Amino acid sequence: MSNPFFKNNGPILILDILKILNINLTDLEENAKINDIKDLSTSNELDVTFFHSQKYKELAKKTKASFCITTEFLKNELPTSCVPLIVENVLVSVSKITSIFYPDAVNDDFDNSVINISETDFKDKVIYGKNVLIGKNVSIGKNCKIGHNTIIEKNVSIGNNCSIGSNTIIRNSLISNNVKILDNCIVGKHGFGFFPNKTKNLRYPHIGIVIIEENCEIGCGSTIDRGSMSNTFIGKNTYLDNQIHIAHNVKIGENSIIAGQVGIAGSSIIGSNVRIGGQAGISGHIKVGNNVEIGGGSGVIKNIPDNTKVMGYPAKNIREFLRDNK
Amino acid sequence: MSNPFFKNNGPILILDILKILNINLTDLEENAKINDIKDLSTSNELDVTFFHSQKYKELAKKTKASFCITTEFLKNELPTSCVPLIVENVLVSVSKITSIFYPDAVNDDFDNSVINISETDFKDKVIYGKNVLIGKNVSIGKNCKIGHNTIIEKNVSIGNNCSIGSNTIIRNSLISNNVKILDNCIVGKHGFGFFPNKTKNLRYPHIGIVIIEENCEIGCGSTIDRGSMSNTFIGKNTYLDNQIHIAHNVKIGENSIIAGQVGIAGSSIIGSNVRIGGQAGISGHIKVGNNVEIGGGSGVIKNIPDNTKVMGYPAKNIREFLRDNK
Amino acid sequence: MSNPFFKNNGPILILDILKILNINLTDLEENAKINDIKDLSTSNELDVTFFHSQKYKELAKKTKASFCITTEFLKNELPTSCVPLIVENVLVSVSKITSIFYPDAVNDDFDNSVINISETDFKDKVIYGKNVLIGKNVSIGKNCKIGHNTIIEKNVSIGNNCSIGSNTIIRNSLISNNVKILDNCIVGKHGFGFFPNKTKNLRYPHIGIVIIEENCEIGCGSTIDRGSMSNTFIGKNTYLDNQIHIAHNVKIGENSIIAGQVGIAGSSIIGSNVRIGGQAGISGHIKVGNNVEIGGGSGVIKNIPDNTKVMGYPAKNIREFLRDNK
Repeated sequence: MSNPFFKNNGPILILDILKILNINLTDLEENAKINDIKDLSTSNELDVTFFHSQKYKELAKKTKASFCITTEFLKNELPTSCVPLIVENVLVSVSKITSIFYPDAVNDDFDNSVINISETDFKDKVIYGKNVLIGKNVSIGKNCKIGHNTIIEKNVSIGNNCSIGSNTIIRNSLISNNVKILDNCIVGKHGFGFFPNKTKNLRYPHIGIVIIEENCEIGCGSTIDRGSMSNTFIGKNTYLDNQIHIAHNVKIGENSIIAGQVGIAGSSIIGSNVRIGGQAGISGHIKVGNNVEIGGGSGVIKNIPDNTKVMGYPAKNIREFLRDNK
Repeated sequence: MSNPFFKNNGPILILDILKILNINLTDLEENAKINDIKDLSTSNELDVTFFHSQKYKELAKKTKASFCITTEFLKNELPTSCVPLIVENVLVSVSKITSIFYPDAVNDDFDNSVINISETDFKDKVIYGKNVLIGKNVSIGKNCKIGHNTIIEKNVSIGNNCSIGSNTIIRNSLISNNVKILDNCIVGKHGFGFFPNKTKNLRYPHIGIVIIEENCEIGCGSTIDRGSMSNTFIGKNTYLDNQIHIAHNVKIGENSIIAGQVGIAGSSIIGSNVRIGGQAGISGHIKVGNNVEIGGGSGVIKNIPDNTKVMGYPAKNIREFLRDNK
Repeated sequence: MSNPFFKNNGPILILDILKILNINLTDLEENAKINDIKDLSTSNELDVTFFHSQKYKELAKKTKASFCITTEFLKNELPTSCVPLIVENVLVSVSKITSIFYPDAVNDDFDNSVINISETDFKDKVIYGKNVLIGKNVSIGKNCKIGHNTIIEKNVSIGNNCSIGSNTIIRNSLISNNVKILDNCIVGKHGFGFFPNKTKNLRYPHIGIVIIEENCEIGCGSTIDRGSMSNTFIGKNTYLDNQIHIAHNVKIGENSIIAGQVGIAGSSIIGSNVRIGGQAGISGHIKVGNNVEIGGGSGVIKNIPDNTKVMGYPAKNIREFLRDNK
């Protein structure tokens, strides 16, 4: 994935990685420098990858990575060019190693590096309110407005003709032209992603960002979390009403209209020209097709094909819903 | 409707209006000055009105307006004193013309005219927190409190003995005596009203306001949108819990009690002495009678008569709901 | 209950209490000083207590209080050492008397006593953002971070290694070590508790607090109300996602995971190791056992035993839900 914002702390010596994983590789020939942690298909010779489920067997066979975090059970699928690093829990181990490469992507403490916009070069090109704060690595286009008490934390790019409301906080986001983000929104914080653990849950890094395409509008009090290993994405001319929650890794197509208090759980993919009524909820890892209409209050717990109207909890074809509820 | 806040940019020459609508009226006798755009029944000789549905036929026959935005199909219902302005889409055209009369009612960019309350006359009569900002055309009664970082944007009237929390933003609202609005609320922003359009949705103006009658309480994190062509209204002694969303044009009666995370969609009318349980949702353009009880989590998708208890999704009589779910 | 924060205005003379209740006790021997108002079992000789329902009969028989607010119908259950104070509505009367003992616990006007953190001793030990405000009776442990525009109002104790986001408001709360509270949260405000009354609802005091145990995380835009007569409690290592509402008196156990936009109504008790899916709602005064899983969108309206998986509205056993919705 593209990752313009999170600084990679690599290269990291393989012996340091092994130490974190509590692995002792007696036949290691060289203390190689590892550049990054990547998935099976995108990793190169100098990366470490991970393989945690049979369903990625075909990808595993072709990986170019020299090292792969995996299990005793799966290790034989890897090519001989790839050294298996055997662990008990692959995802927890991946989380630990990703934290080493991207230490800034684990915690979302407030950005302490921000300064008042009046002390930046933006003071002459942006129309801004009182107490507006700007972090590092921020760009803002022409003809933009930023309301009172709003904080543009680090790693944000805002296009031309954008209007950001008051009391809003944005970080790790790419915002295109003509986007409106209203008051009290939180955009780009890490998602609700962690490994449950009896004494202290283990947060995994979120190295994804939020991408909002041109002409979108985001209503008051909405929260849009950034992705963990991929990005959270909102397509062109999609409008969100107030108090909406978009979880990490969610993708929404173009020209969609989402009414108040809707929630979309992690990693779901919503098509273009979709209309979602107020308070509807979409489960995680669901695919909603193009030109779909979802009635207000619905609970969508399985994939919805293109050109369908659904309603209910669980959501079903709207004709069926109306017939069952006459 | 009463409209104390949005400045009318009129009069506007009829030829300028025709140009925007792409209409060439060859037999126009005079370049008349048009004062306002109003509905069929309230418009006068110097106004332009609009007529987009058969169901307003009787009102159309009696309109006093000299010009009416309408369709080829409907034009013959108008009196001879009213010149039809034939368009493809009446509501889109109304939106365009309303934007000319009320340019401030389309966008809700932050109010850049606010100043710190300590620089206003309110500094001696209001108990206020740090960083409180006050816009133009604001009045505040006796014995009021306004919390930290709260922004009273333009066009707000606050009665006596009101308590506004911190981090709250209010604009275009009339707030009566003894009202409490808690922290993190957004009151008076435009609603989620626009004409969908493939490349860029077309927002229509919201010239309505929010009216909150005396003794009301609004919980933390709630959003109350102002109306588009009418007002959003909350009757006396009605209490709203946290994280509630009230959409544009909604009217709520007196003595009603609305629990947390409820959402009421646009233009619905809720009676007096109504109780709505947590997370319930009311569809748009619905009428809920007086003395109605709506169970928590319900989804109300049709009118509810007076003195009824309902629950479920879709909401039905509570006896029926309990019987069906034994 | 433990009550470290709300100052007790007592002792108050029994004749002053009687006057407020409109009671004339002709045979009162002495104008006793009453220390506090407490429940039947914890009150002592110098307290006033209350007894409003048959189900507390056994406790009533053993109360040590010298005076008890109750009804004509219930008074004979009290021991002879306890003088009954007969009223029409016990809870309204309790509310009035509690307001006299704890006047600060009725209203939640903004805390006007806060000062900028840079003017406090915390300036050298806390990493803080711009415009951070600190009230009276606040303690903050080692290695804490507090984001921009955040307000720690009066009566808050924060442990070590805590990270508080930006635009958040906290009051009347005990927060343990290693807790994260993200942006835009409101923690410790009074709950939605009042006696409905035709012309003006009567708010009752909230003398409870919010207790958040170590290693918890609270997501953006969440609201956690403090308790009325008991505390609102969140156990160790429990994680809340964004836009969650926790009402007054709610108790949540350890190691629980609650997804976005969930709402838990007043006085419900949630066990440990509980998982609640997005947008689920839990009615008030409900008991959810340990190791329970509640599907997203569910509406829980009755007690759920330990080790159960439920889904639906109303929530039922998940096997039943899936079978009924095939």
